[in-house]
Amino acid sequence: MAVYTEVNDEDLACFVAEYDIGGVLACKGIAEGVENTNYILRTEKGAYILTLYEKRVRRDDLPFFMALMEHLSASGVTCPTPIRRRNGKVLGELAGRPAALISFLEGVWIKKPNVEHCGAVGRALAAMHNATLGFPMERPNALSLAGWETLYSQADGRADSVQAGLDAAIAEELAFHRAHWPQGLPTGVIHADLFPDNVFFLKGRLSGLIDFYFACTDILAYDVAICLNAWCFEPDHAYNATKGRALLAGYRAVRPLSDAEMAAMPVLARGSALRFMLTRLVDWLNVPPGALVKPKDPLEYWKKLRFHQRVAGPAEYGFDL
Amino acid sequence: MAVYTEVNDEDLACFVAEYDIGGVLACKGIAEGVENTNYILRTEKGAYILTLYEKRVRRDDLPFFMALMEHLSASGVTCPTPIRRRNGKVLGELAGRPAALISFLEGVWIKKPNVEHCGAVGRALAAMHNATLGFPMERPNALSLAGWETLYSQADGRADSVQAGLDAAIAEELAFHRAHWPQGLPTGVIHADLFPDNVFFLKGRLSGLIDFYFACTDILAYDVAICLNAWCFEPDHAYNATKGRALLAGYRAVRPLSDAEMAAMPVLARGSALRFMLTRLVDWLNVPPGALVKPKDPLEYWKKLRFHQRVAGPAEYGFDL
Repeated sequence: MAVYTEVNDEDLACFVAEYDIGGVLACKGIAEGVENTNYILRTEKGAYILTLYEKRVRRDDLPFFMALMEHLSASGVTCPTPIRRRNGKVLGELAGRPAALISFLEGVWIKKPNVEHCGAVGRALAAMHNATLGFPMERPNALSLAGWETLYSQADGRADSVQAGLDAAIAEELAFHRAHWPQGLPTGVIHADLFPDNVFFLKGRLSGLIDFYFACTDILAYDVAICLNAWCFEPDHAYNATKGRALLAGYRAVRPLSDAEMAAMPVLARGSALRFMLTRLVDWLNVPPGALVKPKDPLEYWKKLRFHQRVAGPAEYGFDL
Repeated sequence: MAVYTEVNDEDLACFVAEYDIGGVLACKGIAEGVENTNYILRTEKGAYILTLYEKRVRRDDLPFFMALMEHLSASGVTCPTPIRRRNGKVLGELAGRPAALISFLEGVWIKKPNVEHCGAVGRALAAMHNATLGFPMERPNALSLAGWETLYSQADGRADSVQAGLDAAIAEELAFHRAHWPQGLPTGVIHADLFPDNVFFLKGRLSGLIDFYFACTDILAYDVAICLNAWCFEPDHAYNATKGRALLAGYRAVRPLSDAEMAAMPVLARGSALRFMLTRLVDWLNVPPGALVKPKDPLEYWKKLRFHQRVAGPAEYGFDL
């Protein structure tokens, strides 16, 4: 939630002149996106999001993200799409960083999602998965099993400072996934970060998906498991089976899930909880003392993980089997 | 530069329903304003700034700021103006804070102002001063002489940790102002914080003034002195007489300055530099170790103050007398 890079008005005018969007009317840094710097740009032709890609995003990955947004938009998935420059390209440079102009998507994200929101997210996620099947590019998931091991080593034995016994428990969980991570399930391009702040609603209807900068090639059902963790737990960390059922029903109405995908859901949900717990843990351990930005609590995801560990099968999520 | 308060989508919808502006299309926190939380709100009727007043702004001062913006707008000064609610009031409450919806002003602020920008700012400042003469409300300047003494006591003898000898030098400067601060000059409502980030330009023309939350009743020429400090020094802290001349000429073309106001300029400029040096000093001394937000350097304003101390009279600023 920060503007990492200031943009000079003269540099901005030169950047905008590379597009057929008229002159700059206003440009304001917005407090969204932890990885990049984002501005709302208003020009004579409309409103846009101007994104400067900071160093946490690999430059080599940018063509994948740009092409994916274009492909999804062209396939009827409502999402931001990069605007083409006069030279036909979508990436430029501004303030020494790769930069792109992205269409502005209307809608607000829902702070307290209800059952209907969960159903809508399930349907939108399945529609996105169906649309990515024709997408030719691939990007390995840097935050899958091997990535979790790397994160664990970055925690460097300090997990017990967050909760006694956590370090050994993570090691055990990693060993479980090495042995049980599902093989042979359908893969495709997944969003991989479809939290409530990345889904916009307008007048009660889902108006679009944003932030594809974790998108990668992985098990499609893993994306469903991520959403279960992100949407179907209450603030007290209790799983809400009604929301889980709605999310799954919404998804399956658009893309059926095989028996193998359903059976794998508890393991995928455990893995997803572990993934977000680990990134939060590393952020938590590396925050400078007295920092003004409070990192997210890794234990929230540890509690979710513990829930999934105790689940015997997909029926316990309240899914209609 | 922060969003201090998150706004729930449901609370926002209720708040917006109090206005005749249609439904919410988008709402994004912007990285502007150090005192308040600001969002760009897009509704079916247009774009607005939604401001939540945080605790650094006194609630009792809000009616003054609201009325001032309305008065200036009605007087032809291009500035944001509060939107009236269905009940005729301009202040509401959102997320437990006083909140107002303000018109959206187009333009961008200039990172490296040139001589023409300085002339335009002088003219706009004088036009604002002329417009405030008919404004009936008053607000004492909390950051004038008595406020400087308070800030100095808050620095609590620690100024020497920033620069050796600074503590005694400030005490000496405060004594100078107690003895020499001008009396009897024309007063009115001043902006008191007209830095480049509070002045918007569009296609080379000044398009408006923003951020009236330091506005108060004080010596009009003191506002000119604040602008001299804010606009007419180069990044190496050297005074640029061409810019100073342009700013003064712009101002005097719209509101003449008396001989007494001109003669007081060096003292007013010293006082203005001291005021910004002191607020920066207190912020600097109170920043938590490891904080992600770097406070502004108080010594920048100490160098400007030292320049004004050596000035013998207004002619040395390059002004046409």
